[in-house]
Amino acid sequence: MNSNEPHVTGHISKRFDQELEEIRNQVLSMGGLVETQVNNGIKALIESDSALAAKVVKKDHKVNRMEVDIDEQCVQILARRQPAASDLRLLVAIIKTITDLERIGDQAEKLGRHQLELTDAGFSSDTFVQLERLGELVSKMLHDSLDAFARMSVEDAKQTHAMDKKVNKEFDGLTRQLITHMMEDPRTIKQALRVSWNIRALERIGDHAKNICEYVIYLVLGKNVRHLDLDAVEED
Amino acid sequence: MNSNEPHVTGHISKRFDQELEEIRNQVLSMGGLVETQVNNGIKALIESDSALAAKVVKKDHKVNRMEVDIDEQCVQILARRQPAASDLRLLVAIIKTITDLERIGDQAEKLGRHQLELTDAGFSSDTFVQLERLGELVSKMLHDSLDAFARMSVEDAKQTHAMDKKVNKEFDGLTRQLITHMMEDPRTIKQALRVSWNIRALERIGDHAKNICEYVIYLVLGKNVRHLDLDAVEED
Repeated sequence: MNSNEPHVTGHISKRFDQELEEIRNQVLSMGGLVETQVNNGIKALIESDSALAAKVVKKDHKVNRMEVDIDEQCVQILARRQPAASDLRLLVAIIKTITDLERIGDQAEKLGRHQLELTDAGFSSDTFVQLERLGELVSKMLHDSLDAFARMSVEDAKQTHAMDKKVNKEFDGLTRQLITHMMEDPRTIKQALRVSWNIRALERIGDHAKNICEYVIYLVLGKNVRHLDLDAVEED
Repeated sequence: MNSNEPHVTGHISKRFDQELEEIRNQVLSMGGLVETQVNNGIKALIESDSALAAKVVKKDHKVNRMEVDIDEQCVQILARRQPAASDLRLLVAIIKTITDLERIGDQAEKLGRHQLELTDAGFSSDTFVQLERLGELVSKMLHDSLDAFARMSVEDAKQTHAMDKKVNKEFDGLTRQLITHMMEDPRTIKQALRVSWNIRALERIGDHAKNICEYVIYLVLGKNVRHLDLDAVEED
């Protein structure tokens, strides 16, 4: 197929449609795996489940592998198909999305590692109960950002994007609590610092989910909304 | 120009060569600005210079603007020129590099914000002296990663990539020091936490510089080295 041929319904090459669909599905499987990693990382911390934590750490290489594979496929399609503007934007958005997914995976791995280190250091099992609410928020935000990607829904992406403010508010509240605890009882300092590293990992997952929402909006509206006030972005 | 025409020396279209050269130069200017932002952010913290900190915060929008502009130009070139494999890889590497540069800019902005918040909170002016060495390491790592990009040198990229271990070691040492200080004198807890946020920002800048090195290696060798042991990567 020559990409200068007109677009009618879908691509003239059915094979190209299939390739794009296949890649989108792979992004969604990668998203599913990353979601599981994040949820298991949070669960391992809250429930002091070292076996689960070890599983999360071990599985991170699978996330990395998926990123490398999808990235390579996108570059090959770009080279082989020389796609027109809209498909090009989809491929660029996918390349960016999987970078953020891979980094979310890294944060999930960190949660697992921290849990394992804590067990070694003999921390009490209720150390991480306080991050349950933040964990739920971030987990939902990631899930919804992947949903917005799957449906290519600007409305969903905008709503999910707005959740980041809640995440940051919860993060700030937890940090204040930690400081108070540490000042009241300096023996808790080491433990509190570990908690602070984990809530920071959760907050970063929220940031990456926010990035994914921005790619969806960019893809659908053709406007680069990064760094702009999303309220000011109207669908044409 | 039709991209199926053979590559002889450079592109048959001189205009296309100029476009690619122009974009590479823009990435290097963006890199230069980001370097200045990082160095000023570190200097503002260490020297308690609030005017400089305010300048860093104010300038971050310029970094963001450059990312959006370069990104848009890359997509337009991809659409218009339908480049062959090697140029394609260059454009994808540029799209990834500017994402990391923009996030380094965000970290520099954070350094500036933290400095301003600390002045408000009345912290002593020597709070951040201890992060000088880590600051120097990270600043050099960023500089060298941009140099490796400018020269497309795999050797430089590999050497710079290896600096990340030093950065992490320095980070771990500083964290241990902070914990000791806090336990000895709980009145320093708030201050120490601020320091810990800033050393974490510096450590993340190191991570992003490492990413840029990986893109250079990928670009030159055509091998995706992310997540692999770099020592095992040999030039063909």
